[in-house]
Amino acid sequence: MLPSSPLPPGAVIGIIGGGQLGRMLALAAAQLGFRCHIFAPENDSPAFQVATQRTVASYTDYDALRGFAGKVDVVTYEFENVPAETAAFLAGRVVLAPGVAALQTAQDRVAEKTFISGLGLPVAPFAPVSDERELEDAIGRIGRPSILKTRRFGYDGKGQTRIDGRKNAATAWAEIGRAPAVLEGFVTFEREISVIAARGWDGEIAIYDVPENHHENHILRTSTVPAGIAAATARRAREIGGRIIAALDYVGVIGIELFVAGDDVIVNEIAPRVHNSGHWTMDACSVSQFEQHIRAICGWPLGSPERHSDVVMTNLLGDEVNAWRKLAAEPGTALHLYGKAEARRGRKMGHFNRVTPRQA
Amino acid sequence: MLPSSPLPPGAVIGIIGGGQLGRMLALAAAQLGFRCHIFAPENDSPAFQVATQRTVASYTDYDALRGFAGKVDVVTYEFENVPAETAAFLAGRVVLAPGVAALQTAQDRVAEKTFISGLGLPVAPFAPVSDERELEDAIGRIGRPSILKTRRFGYDGKGQTRIDGRKNAATAWAEIGRAPAVLEGFVTFEREISVIAARGWDGEIAIYDVPENHHENHILRTSTVPAGIAAATARRAREIGGRIIAALDYVGVIGIELFVAGDDVIVNEIAPRVHNSGHWTMDACSVSQFEQHIRAICGWPLGSPERHSDVVMTNLLGDEVNAWRKLAAEPGTALHLYGKAEARRGRKMGHFNRVTPRQA
Repeated sequence: MLPSSPLPPGAVIGIIGGGQLGRMLALAAAQLGFRCHIFAPENDSPAFQVATQRTVASYTDYDALRGFAGKVDVVTYEFENVPAETAAFLAGRVVLAPGVAALQTAQDRVAEKTFISGLGLPVAPFAPVSDERELEDAIGRIGRPSILKTRRFGYDGKGQTRIDGRKNAATAWAEIGRAPAVLEGFVTFEREISVIAARGWDGEIAIYDVPENHHENHILRTSTVPAGIAAATARRAREIGGRIIAALDYVGVIGIELFVAGDDVIVNEIAPRVHNSGHWTMDACSVSQFEQHIRAICGWPLGSPERHSDVVMTNLLGDEVNAWRKLAAEPGTALHLYGKAEARRGRKMGHFNRVTPRQA
Repeated sequence: MLPSSPLPPGAVIGIIGGGQLGRMLALAAAQLGFRCHIFAPENDSPAFQVATQRTVASYTDYDALRGFAGKVDVVTYEFENVPAETAAFLAGRVVLAPGVAALQTAQDRVAEKTFISGLGLPVAPFAPVSDERELEDAIGRIGRPSILKTRRFGYDGKGQTRIDGRKNAATAWAEIGRAPAVLEGFVTFEREISVIAARGWDGEIAIYDVPENHHENHILRTSTVPAGIAAATARRAREIGGRIIAALDYVGVIGIELFVAGDDVIVNEIAPRVHNSGHWTMDACSVSQFEQHIRAICGWPLGSPERHSDVVMTNLLGDEVNAWRKLAAEPGTALHLYGKAEARRGRKMGHFNRVTPRQA
């Protein structure tokens, strides 16, 4: 559903989800003169604090969704676990970007890996698993170590377990709650990188420089740009990103996580939304991933993804946010806090970008 | 009323005034995890669109002001025409920054010029005028051409008239509505510049690079950084800014407009708030004037005012905002739109910063 002309300033952008990504999207939209209407079930959603309108309702409250769709000019979402039925319901009433098909592909690890390998792009060996016997068969084919992941609703390491030399199928199957799953071969990689790319309704694509990502306990800790990778590896990653975003007929910003293993670049997973490993763009580029996403879904020309600085982004998890005082005093450090009241363990409370003049 | 410790993220910042300056302050505050409560009389205030809470009431509605003061941790304002009684009422109940004395000085052109000349800093010759006879006397002393300005409530050229060779005192006096006024000698200047400075509760001062400003019909058109002035002139301007902000015991960001005439730097006027000629900091510095103001009033360390890029800021007035489509397509141009529904003639609808790598 391509808008015939760009949405003018003053139009209302509907955002499904009220977390920090929705909040930063709303702030970027405001800079361009848009109003935001946030739809989220939690009363204290951080994005509500900076939005013009809010709907507090469940993602399956179709009356609320109908009312929301009637008040906005375009709808987007800040997380990939929006129920596909909800997305489809909205898409029948108002422009939705990214579209339902891209969302469905990214929601299901089997669909996602099938799609990527169907493009001829490398993924870890994988097999769908729907019961304990299939898991045993899959372990037989894929080997150990391997990772058993639920097909749906996994993030930050939730819904997955490693199958090493000793763990048997029954234990692993119980650990992930006996939900439909996928077994993935273990990839020995040297680095984790990602591609943050944007695509407009007209097919225009813009890709940011490739960050190198470090995770701790499956949660992103830092993204560093430039990554410590060969130019050919960066080119390959960007090429993969461009192939995927075009093949999905995607509109908006996408985050694609990749492994670097020798000369190979292997796709790990796709997030159909702005991505934590793109937060560095807020202070090292003239157009952030958040503004880029708003531009894309509103039919505006994409901004230049050019990077003017080197940068390291670090997440503030749980009570690490208490370091704000020290961080605020650091020259060259840009602090971003999410307005969350409770600093639960591991919760993403903010991030900071340490920016230095561009060297390469 | 110095806060004993910095306000933590999550605190509520009260902002008097709901225009674009309040809006950009609220966006900057949100980045640091603060919530904003906007107090403004107009229902469709642009700042409401991005604020957590709002009070729609007159600036002299003391019940509303009392309620507002009870819900916020610090109060600031986005325009200098807040009634001094309103500011004093709030200051009796909650931390107010900048303080009442600075506001009163900046609200009255005679008090302002008396204060500045009392610091030994150059201002145009001036004389207070309270009736037609005083105006005739003042013209006799100061000469022609000169400018008659109301003591209060002038902005963007409103409330002033030029007295050239032919205009008589009676005409000029009628033109400004026979309000208490000041006659200022006409300064023949080569350039208009400004100083955007910040000061914290602890007396720390940070001063941005000096922009060169061009006005059309008394309204700011562009600010260019670096300005086309000698290094000594820039130093002198910064020194003047530092003297004024310290002498006012000021907390927050101040805008000081200056004339460059030969080797002289002459103070034109003071705005006790973030300033249109500081909008370039949003895209050419790591800490914008808006974030700087929030840091200052909340007792945070000031950010570095260092400039990483050269920049030209241009205001979008009235229907010039319709150029958003073209501007959005320009690489290196950052667009800022204010969410105003009606593009009235001369109304500030947005601005854009054209950013280029720093040359000097």
